[in-house]
Parts: sequence; C-alpha cells; structure tokens
Amino acid sequence: MKLFGYWRSSATYRVRIALALKGLDYDYHPVNLLKGEQREPAYLEKNPAGLVPALETDDGAIVVQSLAIMEFLEDAYPRPSILPENLAARGHARAIAATLACEAQPFMNLRMQTYLKKTLELDNGAMTAWLDQWPGGAMRAAEKMAAAYGGDYCIGNTPTIADCCLVPQMFAAKRFGIDTTDMPRLTDIYERCMKLPAFEKARPENQPDAAKGN
Amino acid sequence: MKLFGYWRSSATYRVRIALALKGLDYDYHPVNLLKGEQREPAYLEKNPAGLVPALETDDGAIVVQSLAIMEFLEDAYPRPSILPENLAARGHARAIAATLACEAQPFMNLRMQTYLKKTLELDNGAMTAWLDQWPGGAMRAAEKMAAAYGGDYCIGNTPTIADCCLVPQMFAAKRFGIDTTDMPRLTDIYERCMKLPAFEKARPENQPDAAKGN
Repeated sequence: MKLFGYWRSSATYRVRIALALKGLDYDYHPVNLLKGEQREPAYLEKNPAGLVPALETDDGAIVVQSLAIMEFLEDAYPRPSILPENLAARGHARAIAATLACEAQPFMNLRMQTYLKKTLELDNGAMTAWLDQWPGGAMRAAEKMAAAYGGDYCIGNTPTIADCCLVPQMFAAKRFGIDTTDMPRLTDIYERCMKLPAFEKARPENQPDAAKGN
Repeated sequence: MKLFGYWRSSATYRVRIALALKGLDYDYHPVNLLKGEQREPAYLEKNPAGLVPALETDDGAIVVQSLAIMEFLEDAYPRPSILPENLAARGHARAIAATLACEAQPFMNLRMQTYLKKTLELDNGAMTAWLDQWPGGAMRAAEKMAAAYGGDYCIGNTPTIADCCLVPQMFAAKRFGIDTTDMPRLTDIYERCMKLPAFEKARPENQPDAAKGN
C-alpha cells in the first residue's frame, strides 16, 4: 500500500495511527501542502479533490477521506480491530470520530485558517474566538461523549477509530492554542495513547517529511 | 427505534433516507432547532452535543452523528445494504459521504450561517463567496469523484450512504443558492434518487414537523 499524505495533516495522522494499530506496512509518499503539491496534475489524478490523505492499494484502487480510509482498512484487515464489537459501542466510537472529523478539524485546517486570515481578515482576537467556538465546541462535545462512555480510551479499554481522530485533534489544538483545560477526559486519553508504540510511530515529528525546527 | 430530528436538518434527512432504504419503522420525535429545543435538558440527556439527529434503539442505546447512525443501521440491519460489496467501492461510497458530511454541510448549517452573519457580520456578497468556496468546493470535489466512479447513483447502480448524503446536500444547496450548474453528474443522480419511494418518504416537506409555507 501507498499512503499519500503530509506530516502535519491531521487527516493523514489519523490514518497513520490506524495503519500502525493494525501493524500494516506501507510506503509513505509525502505531498507538501505548503508547496501546493496537492494541486499538481499527478496528484489530482490520485485524488481529484486535491486533499490528503489518499491510500493506494496493492491492486491500484485509491481510497480518499480519512474516515473512509480507516473503514476500508477495517474492512480489508479486520484484526486487530479499531472498532468495538458491541453495535452501540461501534456507533459511539464512530460518533466521536465524526464529531472530530466533521466538526472540529475542517474549521481549523491550513486552507480554512488561510481563508479566515486573508479573505475575511480576521484579527487575532476573532481567530481565537473562532477556534474556541467551532473546533473547541466540537471537542467539548467529544469530551462529554467520552466521559459518558467511559474506559481507558474514548470507548472502552482498546484504542478505536475515535482515538485515531482524537490524538491528531489534540495535537492541532495545542499547536493553535485552543484551551483544553476543560477537557480532562480527552487530555487523559491523549496522554495514555501517546505512550503506545503505534501512536509514537504515527507522530508527525517521526515522519520523513517532518520539517526540522518546527 | 426513535429518531430525534428536525425536518430541515440535512443530517436528520440523511438518516431518514437510510431508514427508508432499509424499510425500517421508527417513531419520529421532532426537535425544533428554531426554538432551541436541542439545548433543553431533556434532549441534552440524549445527546450532550445538543445536535440532531439522535437515534434511540429499542433497548435504549443512543447513537448520534448521522454518519455513525447510518453505519449503525448497516451493522444492525445489513439487508438491504447501503454500502457496495466491493471493498474499494465501499471506500468510494464512504469517501463521497465524508466529503459532503465533513466538508460541505458543516459550513452552511443553521448555526454556522448565524455565526457568519451575526458575529462576523458577513454581507450578502461575502456569504455567497463563502458558500461557493466551502460547501460549493466540497460539492465540486464530490462531482469529480462520482463522475470517476460511474453508475446510476454515486457509486454503481444502487443507492448507498453517498446518496443518503448527496440528496440533503443538493436540497440545502438549492435552498441557499449555491450554483450547481457545474455539477451535472450530481444533479442527474439527485433527480434519479428523488423518483424513488424511499427518498420521497424522507423529504423534509413530508415530515410531521414541516412548517407550512416555507
């Protein structure tokens, strides 16, 4: 398999965690978002949306969108699973994943932050308020959900697709200064995850395209 | 089962389509977003995020987030399926669903439009530009994906989770004036879907809480 991605992309980071949790090998193909490589014709042939990540399977099929890629990995390589067995618990894990992937990260990724600053000319105060309202609000919702479900991780005592989404979201929140002091449960889960080898392997700083000194 | 939702909520509409495609009966519990009923304590007990939809199963479990609810229905009631059989095609269906659910709808729902108009004071021109850039951009990406995959529907010749997301997105795009003339494939699929009884049943106007004259 080939994974096309960018070291600091939250969506790529999610997929790296899922691949590592499943112990799957892959070739990593960096797509430098700062240089606009995601809009080059060769990459647009892989993913016409011009976004990372994209997963190319050994028989040449391409799957995009991090949630879809993680579900594909679960379908194709069911063990170890990144979903609980119980049907309602599977729903809970996917609900936290969707809360973070649909309602937190899209409001703070590189292209959105550029639009807010350059096109809408938001000043620092308005940017902070935006980040607190949108990604912050979604994270506080995830905090309540994870607190209600209980366990060492977001759902139960094994990392799931929810944790694959949580860790990159916490990483991005720290980077952009979202206040997480009212998220003790997410903070606790994040710290527990970061001690696991799969999460260590997937860290942005440990990727070949990581910029030094950032 | 009980479905808590709002007639004009895109996310609720997706789940209604999935329920109808699977031929599942349910009790519909309207949550009036305009009156703020999603923030009332009784509802927050069901869904602490204060969003619709929420699905309550017969044994009292609650699943939230439309993508998670549709996957739950697929797990619990596999036939008829709203996912293709082929693993890559399942990935493609989920990728279009995620593109619309994560990158189109969150940028144009009621709470976001209120924030853009009231808090950021965007004028009509800036609102139009926003809608074209964000939900419009995600829809154009979905157009390319659906064109690449082919078939009568988003993926192949049977409605899938992708079509469950597409139809509400097209409905919202028409309502808020997003230009869809450069989306012939999505328009064609939308019109084909609207002829099916399951999609007819799920239409916002056909729900008991639909406001008359809107």
